[in-house]
Amino acid sequence: MSRSGCCRLFTGGPCCAAVNGWRSQSSPRADCLEVSNIRLAKFLPPLVWARHYSRETLLNDSVAAVIVTIMLIPQSLAYALLAGLPPQVGLYASMLPLAAYALLGTSRTLSVGPVAVVSLMTASAIGELAAPGSEAYLAIAVLLALMSGLMLLLMGVLRLGFFANFLSHPVISGFITASGLVIALSQLKHIFGIQAHGDTVLSLVPDLLRGLGQLNMPTFLVGGGVLAFLFWTRLGLPGLLERMKMPALPAKVLCRAGPVFGVIATSLLAYWLKLDEQGVALVGDVPAGLPALSLPAVAGLPWRELWVSALLISLIGFVESVSVGHTLAAKRRQKIDPDQELIGLGAANLAASVSGGYPVTGGFARSVVNFDAGAETPAAGLLTAVGIGLAALFFTPYLAWLPTATLAATIIVAVLSLVDFSIIRRAWNYNTADFAAVSMTLLVTLLLGVEAGVACGVLVSLGMHLYRSSRPHMAVIGEVPGTGHYRNVDRHEVLKRSDLLQVRIDESLYFANASYVEDRLMARVDSLPELRHVVLLCAAINEIDLSALEVLESINEQLADRGVSLHLSEVKGPVMDLLRSTHFLQALSGRVFLSHHDAVSRLTRELEDERDQSVLNWEI
Amino acid sequence: MSRSGCCRLFTGGPCCAAVNGWRSQSSPRADCLEVSNIRLAKFLPPLVWARHYSRETLLNDSVAAVIVTIMLIPQSLAYALLAGLPPQVGLYASMLPLAAYALLGTSRTLSVGPVAVVSLMTASAIGELAAPGSEAYLAIAVLLALMSGLMLLLMGVLRLGFFANFLSHPVISGFITASGLVIALSQLKHIFGIQAHGDTVLSLVPDLLRGLGQLNMPTFLVGGGVLAFLFWTRLGLPGLLERMKMPALPAKVLCRAGPVFGVIATSLLAYWLKLDEQGVALVGDVPAGLPALSLPAVAGLPWRELWVSALLISLIGFVESVSVGHTLAAKRRQKIDPDQELIGLGAANLAASVSGGYPVTGGFARSVVNFDAGAETPAAGLLTAVGIGLAALFFTPYLAWLPTATLAATIIVAVLSLVDFSIIRRAWNYNTADFAAVSMTLLVTLLLGVEAGVACGVLVSLGMHLYRSSRPHMAVIGEVPGTGHYRNVDRHEVLKRSDLLQVRIDESLYFANASYVEDRLMARVDSLPELRHVVLLCAAINEIDLSALEVLESINEQLADRGVSLHLSEVKGPVMDLLRSTHFLQALSGRVFLSHHDAVSRLTRELEDERDQSVLNWEI
Repeated sequence: MSRSGCCRLFTGGPCCAAVNGWRSQSSPRADCLEVSNIRLAKFLPPLVWARHYSRETLLNDSVAAVIVTIMLIPQSLAYALLAGLPPQVGLYASMLPLAAYALLGTSRTLSVGPVAVVSLMTASAIGELAAPGSEAYLAIAVLLALMSGLMLLLMGVLRLGFFANFLSHPVISGFITASGLVIALSQLKHIFGIQAHGDTVLSLVPDLLRGLGQLNMPTFLVGGGVLAFLFWTRLGLPGLLERMKMPALPAKVLCRAGPVFGVIATSLLAYWLKLDEQGVALVGDVPAGLPALSLPAVAGLPWRELWVSALLISLIGFVESVSVGHTLAAKRRQKIDPDQELIGLGAANLAASVSGGYPVTGGFARSVVNFDAGAETPAAGLLTAVGIGLAALFFTPYLAWLPTATLAATIIVAVLSLVDFSIIRRAWNYNTADFAAVSMTLLVTLLLGVEAGVACGVLVSLGMHLYRSSRPHMAVIGEVPGTGHYRNVDRHEVLKRSDLLQVRIDESLYFANASYVEDRLMARVDSLPELRHVVLLCAAINEIDLSALEVLESINEQLADRGVSLHLSEVKGPVMDLLRSTHFLQALSGRVFLSHHDAVSRLTRELEDERDQSVLNWEI
Repeated sequence: MSRSGCCRLFTGGPCCAAVNGWRSQSSPRADCLEVSNIRLAKFLPPLVWARHYSRETLLNDSVAAVIVTIMLIPQSLAYALLAGLPPQVGLYASMLPLAAYALLGTSRTLSVGPVAVVSLMTASAIGELAAPGSEAYLAIAVLLALMSGLMLLLMGVLRLGFFANFLSHPVISGFITASGLVIALSQLKHIFGIQAHGDTVLSLVPDLLRGLGQLNMPTFLVGGGVLAFLFWTRLGLPGLLERMKMPALPAKVLCRAGPVFGVIATSLLAYWLKLDEQGVALVGDVPAGLPALSLPAVAGLPWRELWVSALLISLIGFVESVSVGHTLAAKRRQKIDPDQELIGLGAANLAASVSGGYPVTGGFARSVVNFDAGAETPAAGLLTAVGIGLAALFFTPYLAWLPTATLAATIIVAVLSLVDFSIIRRAWNYNTADFAAVSMTLLVTLLLGVEAGVACGVLVSLGMHLYRSSRPHMAVIGEVPGTGHYRNVDRHEVLKRSDLLQVRIDESLYFANASYVEDRLMARVDSLPELRHVVLLCAAINEIDLSALEVLESINEQLADRGVSLHLSEVKGPVMDLLRSTHFLQALSGRVFLSHHDAVSRLTRELEDERDQSVLNWEI
């Protein structure tokens, strides 16, 4: 079989399934008819789902869109507040980006828009460059969306989706948990009606403690009340509705609509009781209407200072979005294509930047609601965008009376569901490296901020991986008597000989571990004066780079100097292909064996023969 | 056997050999008598060699010291010139540091002092912070030695010698070759008697071309003459002396003394012909005497800007020194201890900083001369330090007439021996990753400077390694009929079944490759509708981290959803230990087999039995 056959084996089964991994349910073979359409469909997913769009699908998508729209209005306002932006920016970021993702993304149910962690990262990135509320702050947010969009698009075109794999699960978990805590802390000031600055625990906690003396009681009553109500809709209400025998879907919608009730109730309260005169901060005038489309400004803005932030926002947003998309797709046996996701999210961010929004990504809560509400295709996203547009046109006058404490309570309840310390326990029980990664990420994010946290997490996890692979496990092995199986002499009762050393190296050989392996091997060799042969069992060596090849050559020479032959066994195909192009194999003092057992049997026989011979010589 | 026994197996054989790996030749068992002494000797190596110091050893060391001293005087002056420092600083850096290394280093023949690459890096680091020749420039050089010394000591105490392993051989080769070229280019200005600035090809070449119009002919005659003479002593003289039947050692010394003849001849020439009046640059007045000892100044100096440079100088210096020390030690069956080397080199740099020197390390040329001249112990280094001290006391007045062109010629000839392009061809023939690393390092060093070059090389080689390990080789395998050996279906004629998929993953599973493995495996599974069992052959999996464990759990669940069982075979001891602490093994839908052959035999038998059963049911 050819080599390309090997690749094909792994790229995706039947031809239909290869189109973004989606299987058409209605006409299993129809999609396969036109190859050119399939190619195009890879880059424009609606070509697949729109062909089978029925009235029933439209109905399902519409129901989901209405539910998501109702949920999104307060959430968009709240996340804009978290990002330090005027509330309408949250609405703007929930229109065009949804449409852009619906056209180019590969997840059928992902809901794109402002999300908590990215909003926090936006606030953290811009906070040092401009004052919240200023013209410059808004312009930089738009620029950040532009840069993030361009980076995601570029990564998509270069097919760099695998980059996200370098954010390990412990790092992401630690980061999300710490971000959730920081976000919740940062919103307490709105609940208390006090001032607090910063985006780390170190800066927020002292401000909050100092501010408690100036607590604004009416604000606290509103904020605390909404908070208590929202916790009840999450924890108490579902059980109550179940006892009242309400069907599952309406019950779920009712619980999810908690923030909407909170918004309406506290707005009315603020209007009737003129709460603004009591010192309760309100959202105030929000310009009505759709966002004006315009090219984002770059000149005069500090884009050089933003690129690290834009990159981190892109990566974190991408990882969050892909993991949500992946989870939801798996539930319906669909698939997403990470590289095309980069393009979908890139387009969404570009759309945000031309319509006065800020960085967006696929959110967890909103996507789950979309999925649960029965959305079948990205058309639900398009309809949601229309819903938010109608809200922006007709609903904004009523926002003037909305207390910011209500929005803050919405955020706190939403983000506390992100906080999950169980990963720390899991990592602690599992191994040191993962525990180090998760705890470092968590601590640094809490203490030094989101960007330092995620950078530190990636560096620690890569560093731990490299450190471990630079000190590989090596075992002296021997045959478990009579079995032909070779095992660690320290773990099993095996046959040993003082003139034959068998070593298994449990790692690929590359520059970072080659000298370590050499040192340990030669130290072992020097401790065995009767040694005649060394056999390296290479079954676990997946790669030998040039540095390691030179070390092998050096080991071979040093052994030859000592009158010891070096043999290799069970060298893998790809490694053998590489070694064949070198002089090493010719220079090898011993032999290369396909099977370790053959190697040991043959060398043992030779050694026995020699001994018999020398005994014979002696006797003669 | 115990686990600690496993460690002992690899840490070094008989107890004597463990003391820095040195074997005492004269009294094989004497060193073993006092354990406390052995511990101390690990940190103070002279306790080992000084005990057996004889008159004969002293004679050998003295001869070597005289030869090295003669070679070092012009070289120290030249490297100080290269570093942009007054010539006497080169002499200062060749006294106390040698003594410090002799007391704490583990190589018996390494010669420490100013070297070409570190001098270039010093010039490059300070060049942007102060004007060459200024007081501040000198003070920063001393500070750099202090910082580098402290970093090396700290790394030694923390036993971070393995750090050097992350500089792969291709990166070091590319870096050294490019540095040699840049150094040679930078010295041409002294040969031509013109001005040129910078430490990259991009800045030097235009300056040199522009300057050629102002070529100073007397300077060029002196410089070009010495250059031609030195090349002849390297290329022509050895053959001539061999034909004249001169014994090997004196011939070698004569050839190596070329720079000394050049220095004497051109100094006399400059004195007689009053070459300074012709525009030939001379070294000029050099203060006589030993350096004044003083604590280096830190206050008011830009140490914050220096730490990256100091770190790179430390690492590069350490790697150069260790590789030289390693090579020489291997020739006499001695060993060096990288962690103790860090301490020796750290002490040498601290000694340089308190005696008005600049960063030093173990040099290649000087160490080889020391070794060839018969040095047996670090006492040769101590004696060399005394020799240089005598030179500084009595020889400096004669340096006034030494043309800088002579020193430049000395440097050019010395560094061109570092230039070696063969690594590029080797890497090209071997694999892409090593070729990318070596060529990137070479190009970036030439074009953007030494620090960018080495940083880029390390990042490229680590990046390539991570990239490859993030897309591991996976093979569908089957039994080579009747052998019990399992091989890639694409490379061998093997048995296949459509209801049993056997996959070998040729890499440890960790966060960076876990999802890739999942995607490829599940795509393959989805293409096999009759599949009942998947067996993962885990012999090459040396590690499974928490992210990978979660992916395995997800694969297990997805397979279970499809009615397929997951089995593992040949899981290694250390990996199995880790998995036992998790729920994964309990949740595993299939079984874990010690041998892959057993797994396949048993599953095949089960499948056959089931088929027979169903045929039977049908017939009934």
